[in-house]
Amino acid sequence: MKHNFGAGPCILPHGVFEQAASAVLDFNGLSILEVSHRHKDFVAVMDEAIDLVKKALNVPSGYSIAFLQGGATLGFTIAALNMMRGTKKAGYINTGTWATGAIKEAKKVGVDVNVFASSEDKGFTYIPKNYQVPTDVDYIHFTSNNTIYGTQFKEFPKTDLPLICDMSSDIFSKEINVADFDLIYAGAQKNLGPAGATLYIVKDEVLGKSTSPFMPTYLDLKQQVEKESMLNTPPVFAIYVAMLNLRDLLSTGGVKAMESKNNAKANLLYNEIDSNDAFRGAVQSEDRSNMNVTFLLNDESRSAEFDALWKDAGIVGLPGHRSVGGYRASMYNALPIESVQVLVDVMSEFSRKG
Amino acid sequence: MKHNFGAGPCILPHGVFEQAASAVLDFNGLSILEVSHRHKDFVAVMDEAIDLVKKALNVPSGYSIAFLQGGATLGFTIAALNMMRGTKKAGYINTGTWATGAIKEAKKVGVDVNVFASSEDKGFTYIPKNYQVPTDVDYIHFTSNNTIYGTQFKEFPKTDLPLICDMSSDIFSKEINVADFDLIYAGAQKNLGPAGATLYIVKDEVLGKSTSPFMPTYLDLKQQVEKESMLNTPPVFAIYVAMLNLRDLLSTGGVKAMESKNNAKANLLYNEIDSNDAFRGAVQSEDRSNMNVTFLLNDESRSAEFDALWKDAGIVGLPGHRSVGGYRASMYNALPIESVQVLVDVMSEFSRKG
Repeated sequence: MKHNFGAGPCILPHGVFEQAASAVLDFNGLSILEVSHRHKDFVAVMDEAIDLVKKALNVPSGYSIAFLQGGATLGFTIAALNMMRGTKKAGYINTGTWATGAIKEAKKVGVDVNVFASSEDKGFTYIPKNYQVPTDVDYIHFTSNNTIYGTQFKEFPKTDLPLICDMSSDIFSKEINVADFDLIYAGAQKNLGPAGATLYIVKDEVLGKSTSPFMPTYLDLKQQVEKESMLNTPPVFAIYVAMLNLRDLLSTGGVKAMESKNNAKANLLYNEIDSNDAFRGAVQSEDRSNMNVTFLLNDESRSAEFDALWKDAGIVGLPGHRSVGGYRASMYNALPIESVQVLVDVMSEFSRKG
Repeated sequence: MKHNFGAGPCILPHGVFEQAASAVLDFNGLSILEVSHRHKDFVAVMDEAIDLVKKALNVPSGYSIAFLQGGATLGFTIAALNMMRGTKKAGYINTGTWATGAIKEAKKVGVDVNVFASSEDKGFTYIPKNYQVPTDVDYIHFTSNNTIYGTQFKEFPKTDLPLICDMSSDIFSKEINVADFDLIYAGAQKNLGPAGATLYIVKDEVLGKSTSPFMPTYLDLKQQVEKESMLNTPPVFAIYVAMLNLRDLLSTGGVKAMESKNNAKANLLYNEIDSNDAFRGAVQSEDRSNMNVTFLLNDESRSAEFDALWKDAGIVGLPGHRSVGGYRASMYNALPIESVQVLVDVMSEFSRKG
């Protein structure tokens, strides 16, 4: 039994793996890998996946769902291209590696970026607060959860301008109010499905209003929505597995129930970090992520000893991102609290031995 | 037993489906769907996939391989963005729907397109010949196989300029000389793997020489090649299955042996079309595709009768593309000649009944 704390691609429910494997062998008489995306059986999958996203997040009317490719990295470009308006300026909050990427890609397509809040001064170990949101820009962009540093917005920015969010690493982990946003995008490979699909939730009224001189068809959300994510061949299998996973989510209480479970997991691990003398958290307490828990050893010389312990316990994926080091326990929806308890027990044992 | 003549996503070897299903359940102790793309076991998969592409196509040194996302549709943009040089002009051959798409996307990013050869005058039912290739442009672009209309280049355009090819629907079906090209791209979902990955084979010396004012990082082949297709999370499962499929291809004689099999399948079916009074081919004989065989009923009033016959025989995916009608038998690498024989027998039976 392995306990997969990997940051993504990450653990999904075991039942989803079983159904996915079964469909690779037999999906109504063919393999899901050889079914045309135009076949009625796959069109039904796409329709159900879109419907389940709407149900899971209580998406209000006037919003559309698309499943594209290219991850959040292409999403950075898609967001900027589609939301560019008359000022060609945008306000971005910089909370780490992915937010920095979003800023870089917006600039590359001609957006004049105003970084009005940033936590770069302290190595992205907190979420900026008390910032002034600009009003003379086309849109506001932020990254809801910082997968690498382990911080997470507990309150979202308030603005009357279009609000855009890269929600790759915490979407479906807690309740959100979709009506607060004009565009949400998220790489699938955390709480939605396997790598290879990217979810877009877009307010219909923003579509087709870009002022970008450059709009490749694939990157145009208006055309993607009009073609119901079938402008060209979609990533059939990734969408199929996402649909299975959303079915599983809704059949086990939906996002509300998941949020309680995620809070319980986070409390369990953060309490251990705070009460165990051998460890310390890597970021400011009130901004800690429930998805990616980053922590450090107080005595670095004991790292080999700690690594041996958690590996012996069947834990995988615990090292921190190569750009920051330390440890990172990613606790996505499908990770059971029992796995968190295994890690907590290992940390206690390590402390007793110290 | 189904005979899958679908145009893509399409049939792959049954053994590949079995191995893929097995890895969804257990890939070195985790599901392939939850393995990090940075895990050494997946890095090994990526390395092997790249190596197998090179082996299968005898890719010479000085070329790099990348697995991206977005299909050929995003490839149209990537090709134009990366190959744009001093003249900002390019020569395109228009042989159908996908070539038309490539032209449209090149224009959208500011390329002045010279369509120097086209078969649009006769509904794309032939491959243009005796054209004059322009010399005052940055690059030449063509589409090697026309999946929808069923035509295929038997001889490639000759030019001293950089030659770019969308080879989505016939790559790995026959031997090619990669050294003739500066850039080849291909959606995976025909002869390479499932939907969700797009293959790029690029001459290293063309990288980083674009004159485009816009170059989102995801679309920059130089950065994608430098990051070994791991600029961001790659489509892990699609690449894994492509790797399995390439292993299978190389273990059964490689592209050379496959070309013989594909010729035999095409001969079998085209001979039936030409000798059976009930049918006629949809395109000019010498330009017929070995991958997508398009044909028409001479007596349209008997279509329900023909449809019932082939459906009874277990054949799926035979209707022509919705934009052209008629029939299309796609005979990708994994389709056994036995399936073609089943179709030929059905056509014979239908003719006898007429």
